[in-house]
Parts: sequence; structure tokens; C-alpha cells
Amino acid sequence: MKAERTFPGFCAAAIVLASATAFAGGRTSADPLPSWNDSTNKSAIISFVEKVTTEGSADFVPAPERIATFDNDGTLWVEYPMYTQALFAFDRIKALAPQHPEWKTTQPFQAVLEDDMQTVAASGMEGLMEIVMASHAGMTATEFEQEVTSWLATTKQSRFDRLYTELIYQPQLELLDYLRANGFKTFIVSGGGIDFMRPMTEKAYGIPPEQVVGSSIVSEFRMKDGKAEIVRLPKINFIDDKAGKPVGIYNYIGRRPILAFGNSDSDMQMIEYTMAGDGLRMGLFVHHTDADREYAYDRKSHVGTLDKALDQAASKGWNIVSMKTDWNTIFPAE
Amino acid sequence: MKAERTFPGFCAAAIVLASATAFAGGRTSADPLPSWNDSTNKSAIISFVEKVTTEGSADFVPAPERIATFDNDGTLWVEYPMYTQALFAFDRIKALAPQHPEWKTTQPFQAVLEDDMQTVAASGMEGLMEIVMASHAGMTATEFEQEVTSWLATTKQSRFDRLYTELIYQPQLELLDYLRANGFKTFIVSGGGIDFMRPMTEKAYGIPPEQVVGSSIVSEFRMKDGKAEIVRLPKINFIDDKAGKPVGIYNYIGRRPILAFGNSDSDMQMIEYTMAGDGLRMGLFVHHTDADREYAYDRKSHVGTLDKALDQAASKGWNIVSMKTDWNTIFPAE
Repeated sequence: MKAERTFPGFCAAAIVLASATAFAGGRTSADPLPSWNDSTNKSAIISFVEKVTTEGSADFVPAPERIATFDNDGTLWVEYPMYTQALFAFDRIKALAPQHPEWKTTQPFQAVLEDDMQTVAASGMEGLMEIVMASHAGMTATEFEQEVTSWLATTKQSRFDRLYTELIYQPQLELLDYLRANGFKTFIVSGGGIDFMRPMTEKAYGIPPEQVVGSSIVSEFRMKDGKAEIVRLPKINFIDDKAGKPVGIYNYIGRRPILAFGNSDSDMQMIEYTMAGDGLRMGLFVHHTDADREYAYDRKSHVGTLDKALDQAASKGWNIVSMKTDWNTIFPAE
Repeated sequence: MKAERTFPGFCAAAIVLASATAFAGGRTSADPLPSWNDSTNKSAIISFVEKVTTEGSADFVPAPERIATFDNDGTLWVEYPMYTQALFAFDRIKALAPQHPEWKTTQPFQAVLEDDMQTVAASGMEGLMEIVMASHAGMTATEFEQEVTSWLATTKQSRFDRLYTELIYQPQLELLDYLRANGFKTFIVSGGGIDFMRPMTEKAYGIPPEQVVGSSIVSEFRMKDGKAEIVRLPKINFIDDKAGKPVGIYNYIGRRPILAFGNSDSDMQMIEYTMAGDGLRMGLFVHHTDADREYAYDRKSHVGTLDKALDQAASKGWNIVSMKTDWNTIFPAE
């Protein structure tokens, strides 16, 4: 078993080497976060990573415990003016409407069919989930994955005229890479549907499906046409939002993160849970402050509301990352 | 980002090197599975792994899709004559009994208090789950983890006079290592409680908590004494058994395994689901045939019943691994 057993040690050595190369001489040789402007936030991130990875340091954390969790909508990709998954769901609701005449007079479906986005947004996360779940069930897991993959490969966001999977934040891609190069395991913990995210996270963020935690509908095992399949049912299983996020982390990951990154009040419990662990911890929020390059919204937005977290950030030691001042690039180059 | 980006490639190279070392000249240099006797099962495993890892082969599977799932009780560690977690639960039920006078006349609790194991076993997986859940709730996640860790560190199995975490199968440890050295990601998918397994799987099997799928009770996020915590509630959330196993795999992993290993009829759906995917697949069952070195039980056992799977194995192409003839060693050396 010798040959196999040397492999983990070899990889650990690779991590150490990679880190040493990148940060030799106080990161003069290569900046791991080039799309981040020099700022207190960037320094805080690098200082945190250096402390938890320095053996012998009081803040050292063994690699297997370096769990980092990221919200998706508004933290890793654009969520404004409406969650991408909601737009996918709206397209499906419209396509399925002829089979559901009751939707014409039942909210929030009526609002979708009438393109009344204000009423849809006002129905909140619960309303959006209802739309999402109703439009995502009654098919096999394989069929749903194909629907999502096809929609994401062909539908462009109107303002930027790019695929949604291209409207991901370059500074966060660098941060994810930087964390992984330092032995972190990176997870998504999102209110979005777990099976809507999984077809895109590996290619977009380098995060494999099994490291994605999200909301889900009930599914069941069935023999369909003689083939063992998972069939999706129109019933909510778990809402991975607000107080659901720490629960999702406990159920799916089973360890408390040491770093968590969100962008709205819905991420507060995840960050509270992260910060409440022993030892050094880090909690961050993206603040959408850049109407020119992306969007500017916070306290009064129906999508990605950031209000209480802004008020509590200073007293709780959370980092508020301003898109406008902290990031010199928003999206990957075309 | 160059230094970081080379890391995955470096590890992939390490995998290739490790495999090449182990198998140069048709694995003459080092047997990756020394505790497995030369047999059709051992050959089938090695042939499967070689095929799915050979680039250009019609059966090649990219590393990220090399998902292998293992049942725990009876597949990775001893489950006979009673599941380890049940024994832990019985100890806790007895300790908690003074606070629950109703248990004296309510099954299956009465049977636990009276050491009537036949009645307990007859209550089946559902009955066992009821005991497990009732005895595992009403505390924080952190407290429960400490209870489990402490019990596993101090309680010995009576026949073998060893800790339960030492009564793990050496041939399976070698198989897990062999699969990981060949780029597989190894998961546990067990009917057992997810939070009972997680404190022991990394040390025992090299499987981190986030790669453990199992049954769970409902938990919720609470601020307790000013600290953000997960609190465990006495309500079943998910039973990861029989048809629940493919559902657990879908929810937690999000990919269909290419290899699955179980030991009872409760693993049939997991193996059906695994085998039904496209391309080369492998499904295996441990058959407990060794009363001298471990235990012999199958069709009529209340624990780990192996009956229908034995009947269907040949026609469905499942491998039945006989503990007595396939394994030359059962447990790691003391």
C-alpha cells in the first residue's frame, strides 16, 4: 500500500510548495488576488489565510478543517434585478402554463405569466421557491439536469448580453482558487435550488456538485421504463436560507466553516454560525455598490436585501467588501 | 494565479505516478489489495479500475465522475449481532430512562430497558431509528459529537474485546485506498445516523465528514447562551435506507456512483441506481460467511438481511464477495 499512501502526503507537499511560491517574500512574486484592490479587506483575507495555514501559529487550522462556504446569488454571480434561477423558472412556467389553467388566477404564478415582476419579487423567497418547485418537478433528475444545462448554455442576461455563467465575479474566482491552493475545501451554501446550481458550479467555480448545498424538492427512487431513476416531486424538502443555512451546513458538510462569504441578510445566520466556532474565523459580505459596472442595491432591495448585516458588521467583526472600491475587475474577460 | 493553478495538475500527475508505480508490469511490484485472495472478485475489481482509469479506453471515466459509495454497517465495520449505533443508543436510553417513565411500557424502549434484543431486532430499521432518534436529540451538535466520540473511545465489543472503530475490515480499507489512489472520491451511504458516523469515518476510513451520507434527525439553528449553535430535535428528517439510498446520493452527492458496495438487501436500490448509469459500472455485496473469524449470517438475519440480492446477483451482474474465501485478513492488526 506504500505507493498509494504517499499520495496524500505528496499533495500536502504540493500545497505547501504552491503557497511558498506565491507568497515568498510577502507576496512580492505573484499577487494571488489581482482583481482585488489593495485595501483593508484584501489584507484581512491574506492575513487570515496566512495565520490559519502557518504551522505552529496559535491560529493554525489543520487542512481538513479549512472549510469555506460561499453563498451563490449575489456573492459568486449576478442576482439582480432577479435571481437567475427565477428567470429559468419563469421561462418554464410560461411553457407549462397551458397544462395549468389555474395559474392564471393564482399568485405568484399569475404575476409570472403577466410579467409583473414587482408582485413576484414581493412574494419573497417563499414565493419564489413555490414557483421554482412547481416548475422543476414531474421529471427525472437526468431530464431536469438537461433542461438546466440547455437553458444556461443558450439564455443571455439582457443588460450585459452574456450567458449567466459568464456573469460570475472574477475576484471571487481568484479567492476560491487562493483558498483551495491553501488547503481549503470550498463549498456553496445557497438559498438557490441545489439541482439548478450543480450543473454549472464545477465549470464556473471549480466547485464539484458534491460541494454544493442548497434548497431542494422531495425526490424519490423509481424504476422508470425498467431503469433505476430519481424522480422529482412538487414538494419542498428543504429551504437552505437564513436559519436554514447553518442547518444545511450541519447536514451536508458536518463541520463548522472557518470562513463564510455572503451578500445579504439571508447569510447572517451562516456567518454567525461560522464566527461562533473556536479559534480564528472570518465572515464577509459583498456590498453591491457599483451601478456602473454591476448594480447598486442594499437595504431596500427585494433581491439580496442587505440591511441588518450592514448595521451589525462593525460590532460583530464582519468584513463588508464594496464592489466599487474593493474590486478592480467584476467579470472574467470575454 | 499561476502557482495555484498548477496544483490540481500536480496532484493528477501524482495519481498517475502512484498508479504507475503500483501496477507497473501488471501489478507485479506491489499488490494494491494484499488482504484479498486472488479470485474472480479481486480480478474484477482491478479490471474495473484499470478500465475506467485508462485514457482512450471506451470505458474511461474522468476523475471527477469516479464516485464510489460504500454502505457502513456490515460493509466497512461489524454490524452483528447488533448495529454499533444501536448499542450506543441502548446505553443512552438506559442512562436517560429515569427522565422518561413512559419508556417502561412503550416498545421498542421497554425491550431496550429489559435487554430483550429479540424484540428490539424485530422492530426493524424503523424501530431502531426510533430508539436512535429519541436517544440522540435535545442537545447541541457539539455535545452530541462529544458523546459519540467518548463512547467510541471507551466501549469495547464483547466477543473481540476491541473498540468498534478497530472492528473495521482491512480488505475494505485497502480497497478505499486503492480507489482514491486512482482518482475516485469515496463516500459512505449508510442507513446509520450521519452524525454518529462522522466523528469516526475520517480516522477509520480516510473518509471526511462531508463525504458521509446517512439518516438524520431534524435540527435547527439557535442562539444558545449567546452562541450560534445547531440543536438536535427528536424528529426523523431522512431515512437513508433501501429506496432512500439513491435519494440520499442524489441530494448529497448529486452524481450517480460508478461503483457501489453494500452487504444487505437494504443496499439493492443503491446498487440498482449505480448500475443503471451509462458506461461501465460495478456493484458488490459483502457476504458474511465466516463464523470463525467474524460472523455468518444472510437470509434469515434480522441484522443485515441478505436474501433477494443473493438470488438476483448472477442475473444482474453483481459481485458477491465471500468473507471466508475472498478475504485472507478481516481486521487490521492490533
